[in-house]
Amino acid sequence: MAPLARNVLVTGSNRGIGLELVRQLVEGPDPPEHIFATYRDLDGARGKALQELAAKYPPVRLIQLDAVSLASVRAAVKEVDSQLNGKGLNLLINNAAVNSYATLQSVQPEEMISVFTTNVVGPIQVAKEFLPLLKRAAEEAGKEGLSCSKAAIINMSTKVGSIELCFQVLEIPMYPYRASKAALNMVTRCLAAELKDAGILCTAIHPGWVKTDMGTEKAPLTVECSVQGILSVLAGLSQATTGVFLDWEGKSLPW
Amino acid sequence: MAPLARNVLVTGSNRGIGLELVRQLVEGPDPPEHIFATYRDLDGARGKALQELAAKYPPVRLIQLDAVSLASVRAAVKEVDSQLNGKGLNLLINNAAVNSYATLQSVQPEEMISVFTTNVVGPIQVAKEFLPLLKRAAEEAGKEGLSCSKAAIINMSTKVGSIELCFQVLEIPMYPYRASKAALNMVTRCLAAELKDAGILCTAIHPGWVKTDMGTEKAPLTVECSVQGILSVLAGLSQATTGVFLDWEGKSLPW
Repeated sequence: MAPLARNVLVTGSNRGIGLELVRQLVEGPDPPEHIFATYRDLDGARGKALQELAAKYPPVRLIQLDAVSLASVRAAVKEVDSQLNGKGLNLLINNAAVNSYATLQSVQPEEMISVFTTNVVGPIQVAKEFLPLLKRAAEEAGKEGLSCSKAAIINMSTKVGSIELCFQVLEIPMYPYRASKAALNMVTRCLAAELKDAGILCTAIHPGWVKTDMGTEKAPLTVECSVQGILSVLAGLSQATTGVFLDWEGKSLPW
Repeated sequence: MAPLARNVLVTGSNRGIGLELVRQLVEGPDPPEHIFATYRDLDGARGKALQELAAKYPPVRLIQLDAVSLASVRAAVKEVDSQLNGKGLNLLINNAAVNSYATLQSVQPEEMISVFTTNVVGPIQVAKEFLPLLKRAAEEAGKEGLSCSKAAIINMSTKVGSIELCFQVLEIPMYPYRASKAALNMVTRCLAAELKDAGILCTAIHPGWVKTDMGTEKAPLTVECSVQGILSVLAGLSQATTGVFLDWEGKSLPW
């Protein structure tokens, strides 16, 4: 079995879904050559889990990256470029995000802007700065079509960010989070349209409601199960599924 | 014919669609008692057109309002409240917005945040601060159901903000504008869900591609024709159409 992608980068990989993505990628039957596991900070117990993975598996490379800081993103690009040694980056997973609850009464402008910055501006900035490495991967693939093994940007979205499903999914008011994820879905679709001709796929994935710090213990799905599903969905993506919104089982979601 | 709504507020009314909304509302057969025409600044020729309307028609009241400044919004609420003299505000039209073009290569974080702030945080802040006056209108209506004549928030959206239609509508890359309008559509839907029980309707309207400063001369639709359509659509809104996305002819758009 060929690896999902030769060179992969996962943002926010010090915890939750990001950490599990790195673990399953490296412990799978045919791991990538490089898994750039980026983190904003490595403090606490969760930072330890990622450090242990990196110590155990040589493909896992820890890279500091704060997606909202241009200087930090550019330093990460430089470091990744140097480790790739002339090869391209095949798969960029924009996973880092923050959650936020607020009703109309409690919502604060600063919180709206802060969540938008982390959840939307961060992923755009990462996509923009890593674009030359993604294009290099697309060119070196030397084949038609789109896939995660060639060159792809995956944006971790959420069903809670579906405007259509807003009345059905979780009645909890969360203006900043929902608005940011709807905006990220739009960005995913714009990226898919803009980068198709460059050979780069872009798809939004809903990981399910997962037992993580963000999803809480009430969530029905384990992170292992969610990530297994996500990796299987990513392996099947093609030009037919660029610019769409899929859940961890591959089911299509409305915007 | 009853007026569309007794007391109306339109943001960004010094030009384009906002100005025409005020004009058609006050020149119609049964004008509102008050039309609070808000503007950020009144400089230039367009400010003059609004000032002339206000001089000619007593229902038109000019109110300075910068939607992203809490102090400015609160001052406007105080002024409107005083002029309403105990009555409620029936119809709030969040029309003020900015446009912005950018490809992935040219997009700047500051521009993403600035457009999001004007197009999303502004309308939320205006809705939040005017909520007591909207609730008062809903209460004094003393009838079931939802309508613009009772209490409503209309968010001016755009087809360009439809994630679903992104591949079909205008191939021009405009990450900041598109992301902001998708986020505003989500906010519209959240408001509709949260405010339904308070008797307040909330709907997103696409005005068409209109010959204005923002739409340019290339647009196929005159502002008069667009606003005629919008006002007719608003008059027909009910509990069945809260939380939806309609164009100026009343046709439903996908998110």
